[in-house]
Amino acid sequence: MSQILVIGSLAYDSIFTPSGSAEFTLGGSANYFSLAASLYSQVRVVGVVGDDYREQDLQMLKSRNVDVEGLKVVPGKTFHWAGEYKSDLNEAITLATELNVFETFDPQLPKSYRTSEYLFLANIDPKLQLKVLEQVEGAKVIGADTMNFWINSKLSTLKSLLTKIDVLLINEGEAKALTGQSNAIAAAEVLAEMGPKATVIKRGEYGFVLYHDREYFILPAFPVSTVVDPTGAGDTFAGGFFGYLAKNGLGIESKALKKACVYGSLLASYTVQDFGLKSLMSLTSDDVDQRFQEYQRCVTI
Amino acid sequence: MSQILVIGSLAYDSIFTPSGSAEFTLGGSANYFSLAASLYSQVRVVGVVGDDYREQDLQMLKSRNVDVEGLKVVPGKTFHWAGEYKSDLNEAITLATELNVFETFDPQLPKSYRTSEYLFLANIDPKLQLKVLEQVEGAKVIGADTMNFWINSKLSTLKSLLTKIDVLLINEGEAKALTGQSNAIAAAEVLAEMGPKATVIKRGEYGFVLYHDREYFILPAFPVSTVVDPTGAGDTFAGGFFGYLAKNGLGIESKALKKACVYGSLLASYTVQDFGLKSLMSLTSDDVDQRFQEYQRCVTI
Repeated sequence: MSQILVIGSLAYDSIFTPSGSAEFTLGGSANYFSLAASLYSQVRVVGVVGDDYREQDLQMLKSRNVDVEGLKVVPGKTFHWAGEYKSDLNEAITLATELNVFETFDPQLPKSYRTSEYLFLANIDPKLQLKVLEQVEGAKVIGADTMNFWINSKLSTLKSLLTKIDVLLINEGEAKALTGQSNAIAAAEVLAEMGPKATVIKRGEYGFVLYHDREYFILPAFPVSTVVDPTGAGDTFAGGFFGYLAKNGLGIESKALKKACVYGSLLASYTVQDFGLKSLMSLTSDDVDQRFQEYQRCVTI
Repeated sequence: MSQILVIGSLAYDSIFTPSGSAEFTLGGSANYFSLAASLYSQVRVVGVVGDDYREQDLQMLKSRNVDVEGLKVVPGKTFHWAGEYKSDLNEAITLATELNVFETFDPQLPKSYRTSEYLFLANIDPKLQLKVLEQVEGAKVIGADTMNFWINSKLSTLKSLLTKIDVLLINEGEAKALTGQSNAIAAAEVLAEMGPKATVIKRGEYGFVLYHDREYFILPAFPVSTVVDPTGAGDTFAGGFFGYLAKNGLGIESKALKKACVYGSLLASYTVQDFGLKSLMSLTSDDVDQRFQEYQRCVTI
């Protein structure tokens, strides 16, 4: 079975939305990604948590067969993010970012991790993304995400990273910020010139734009009438995307990428239906297959 | 051949966008609608213009075989709208609305118009929309649009109108305002309870949501890398939608509505590529058929 390696955050999040709130609930890009991807494939996590990280939260990953050998537990507090969504659920207002043990994180990969076929570099300092990338040999598909903070503060490192990856998965707002374009379609073309073989622009409830080989593939999200909490939707998308590729041993081919985007988008549609990781925790691949059928009816002319 | 009757505005618009500006250029919902719909079917216009309305602008409609018997020319100035789009091209900032001759408009339909099979009530005072509706007998499909101004000022008249139409075509922001929902999917369900058999929520670059018979049909807009001027895109959508239905003599059936939405969306993708009515004026149905093929490749899993 193919192995997916992910580096990202494991965190406690405090989330406030019009539907309610959840304080110090389990979150972080690596957790969302792993839960989604592990529905389809083997996942290995690289990350760091503090000694306050709850045993049950570690067990949760293990129970999904996620390899946590690359997860370091160090003295101190786990990364904490607090954010609020007002009526526009597409936009998070960050209330607090306490990096804690993440501040001094220096990712070293266990030897067994270095030959992973699939690599996803979730949204962290591009310097660390590069550092992990250099430790992996011969990966079939390398993907990365980023955010405004790194676009503004580490642009040259980020640009160097972009020349070394296969797929960039990025939010619409960040795609515009990174390219200076006011339109996702134009942004995708500019991003393609920056290095990645394929670009996926995530548009929240509006779905995604895939740009690959000078062709667009664009679809909306699965219709959800109540969005409870959009946190982690992007990382879930990436998890579904990589899970689909890894399960089927696929590379950067147009047909594979399209289907991977659909799976990513479908998985994200579950994440937003409840707080934090709640929906993902009880999700089965049968559920997703059924939603896939429903989705096809929604988007077929 | 089926006949489409449209009531709406014929106007001169002053438009400012990041791509440039166009002052006192031909516009108005009835013009956008008629140019789009006349690619496919016979169109009849009800509206009013001032004695400053340029002969060439009247000729333009006639050259497309649009019936202008219901177009009144009265002393005074033609309706003038001025608006600006900043970097978010999805949102127009109204700079001026000079109703002029539209202020006292009392639509009286020529006798020949009263048996039109298709009726579109573009965004005007719902009182006038109802007045036109009452003068038409046995229409096969009745559609209407509206905007925040009427939602805020004439809600009960608008609600009465909604019980008498087949299809509501409305912007996403207005759908949310009319229903109090923060999500287009939930808004579509609430709108369905207000009367119309089908609801089309127009989402600009993100395409549309069709809700009919408890099923969703959702697709993005055709990818356009440079949006020059979004003015009239919604009315163009309605024109393409009704043009497709009328050309094929179709009613409110799921398959017909889906295809009508795709045509509406495709035609709107031309409108936004240039100022005002410029793109629509030179557009042929062959162009649209070709774009339809390209679009299918973009949205087929």
